[in-house]
Amino acid sequence: MKNIEAFSLRYLDGRLSVLDQQMLPHQEIWHSIETTEQMIEMIISLKVRGAPLIGLAACLTLVHEISKGVTPEQFFVHLEALRSSRPTAVNLANYLDRLKRTVAEHGFSAARIESEVAAIFDEDRDMCLKMSKFGAELIDAGDRVLTHCNTGSLATAGIGTALGVIKMGAQQKKVAHVYVDETRPLLQGGRLTTYELKKENIEHTLICDSMAAALMQQGLVQKVFVGADRIAANGDTANKIGTYALALAAFYHRVPFYVVAPSTTLDLQCPTGQHIPIEERKAEEVLGVKTSAGEVLWAPVGTQVYNPAFDVTPIEFITGIVLDSGVYLQSAVQAGQLKQLRVR
Amino acid sequence: MKNIEAFSLRYLDGRLSVLDQQMLPHQEIWHSIETTEQMIEMIISLKVRGAPLIGLAACLTLVHEISKGVTPEQFFVHLEALRSSRPTAVNLANYLDRLKRTVAEHGFSAARIESEVAAIFDEDRDMCLKMSKFGAELIDAGDRVLTHCNTGSLATAGIGTALGVIKMGAQQKKVAHVYVDETRPLLQGGRLTTYELKKENIEHTLICDSMAAALMQQGLVQKVFVGADRIAANGDTANKIGTYALALAAFYHRVPFYVVAPSTTLDLQCPTGQHIPIEERKAEEVLGVKTSAGEVLWAPVGTQVYNPAFDVTPIEFITGIVLDSGVYLQSAVQAGQLKQLRVR
Repeated sequence: MKNIEAFSLRYLDGRLSVLDQQMLPHQEIWHSIETTEQMIEMIISLKVRGAPLIGLAACLTLVHEISKGVTPEQFFVHLEALRSSRPTAVNLANYLDRLKRTVAEHGFSAARIESEVAAIFDEDRDMCLKMSKFGAELIDAGDRVLTHCNTGSLATAGIGTALGVIKMGAQQKKVAHVYVDETRPLLQGGRLTTYELKKENIEHTLICDSMAAALMQQGLVQKVFVGADRIAANGDTANKIGTYALALAAFYHRVPFYVVAPSTTLDLQCPTGQHIPIEERKAEEVLGVKTSAGEVLWAPVGTQVYNPAFDVTPIEFITGIVLDSGVYLQSAVQAGQLKQLRVR
Repeated sequence: MKNIEAFSLRYLDGRLSVLDQQMLPHQEIWHSIETTEQMIEMIISLKVRGAPLIGLAACLTLVHEISKGVTPEQFFVHLEALRSSRPTAVNLANYLDRLKRTVAEHGFSAARIESEVAAIFDEDRDMCLKMSKFGAELIDAGDRVLTHCNTGSLATAGIGTALGVIKMGAQQKKVAHVYVDETRPLLQGGRLTTYELKKENIEHTLICDSMAAALMQQGLVQKVFVGADRIAANGDTANKIGTYALALAAFYHRVPFYVVAPSTTLDLQCPTGQHIPIEERKAEEVLGVKTSAGEVLWAPVGTQVYNPAFDVTPIEFITGIVLDSGVYLQSAVQAGQLKQLRVR
């Protein structure tokens, strides 16, 4: 396999390693991955996270298993185990299905699978750049933008999805300021988006998720850009918990609200958001925090918790969906335009 | 001064003490208060919190200063220092103004001031009970209700405001379940409301603030009850940050959204919510958490933060305001009914 290097994922000289996103921003720790089980643990514990990145990490894990000599039967067992590591993001399933098709079409060829994975990486990076350019056109000079969770270089092979758009807008000197939702419970905004924006020297302000509506009320937000974990055929979008509340607030304040995702996030088999499976995670995440800087459980022991990792934003609250093939405004999506697209 | 005992505030045999709400739920620590400066520190650091309770604590501090022999001049200096400890909640100013009127009308009499403070306490407790009864009538059997921040016995001299309504509804066996917003950044929901509901054996589920909208989308919330820090003459309400986002979500889902507060929370001199001063607090609160169970700073060092302690919910998103004198529906408030009320 040729060397591959993304911001949080590497395959160098046959060695697979991942940047531990749970240890950021305070520590940059890379883990060597030897087995599928190890990668699944990394994905479940969110050390490896971000809808596109999970799919890429799974692909590289399979390449690594092949290099160790797995049989075709074992390969498919590993593939299905990786698929079931997290249920909501569809990029994972899309990429794994693509590898299955490669095997179906060309037989179990290491070289073929490796080149397909390399192509997936190149395409992911390329899609990021395309989305970022399309999305940046939506930003007006002087806009203050708001984002949720982390959708940048940590979450993709390239510049990112929603955060890619914002970075591109900043490069084009159009973004006046970035507001970052901290994104409870796992604080991807507070830990990761702040980390990326700091590295890029883009001025930003961290807020609690519940403050976004008050910012909009004061006219301090001109655009919202969020990523997606799965987009149904009708445009309904599953994304990190809190996205829906943000979309409602944007709707009332007439702040344009854009979803940014590669076409690998589309699930055209899924008719509406109601059909998207929503992962529920363990109570500990809501009872407190567990970060590289320390952990605290502040709620009374044994408190019952509801902890969905995602929510679904109906298309009527989404101004437009930015894909690598262009911007699809709500009316176009409602007219069925996504259904015309081909997902590789 | 006669003995006074509330859930989180005591004046026993001339000794003033407060329950440290920052140490809850893991530790129940009472602090002896000897000086106005100490109480101000307790209020600023949120060891003493809750709009009515802050006012009550300030009154008892002045009683204590009198017992130590302050002059009238010093008394007023202490009073104004207490007034400026936190700017948004108006109960504090209302209670302090009442003591000023007592002095103006009856001279600087320790006995008069003490009996006025005792009356304020009795009235606060009584108002809690009245609000709770009026509010509980709004709950239908089987309702799942949602609340934000902490508005219970910890925050008042009695059963509470919004949480008082919920407890009363639970006593009447009408509340099927309580959802508790954790209330970032200071986690009054996650630490304090859970603590109170556990003590009362009322079934509840803790959520992150950003999850409330998703619960409503699933039809899991039938009523929302929140407290208030200041209600303007037109009904616009300042309350803990996150209340506005919650109100927007409730509005869209047609979930009745009630504000519950004693009449001492009314500021009829304040025409609309735009005139309510909003306290901004220090960045550390958003960069991480600091609780009795430990502290963590998870964001990159030096990250810029926006940290308003409150937001303003316009009356058009409030179904009704529950005061100790009854329930004032939005239309009545918009017709000017609050302006007819007398605030002592």
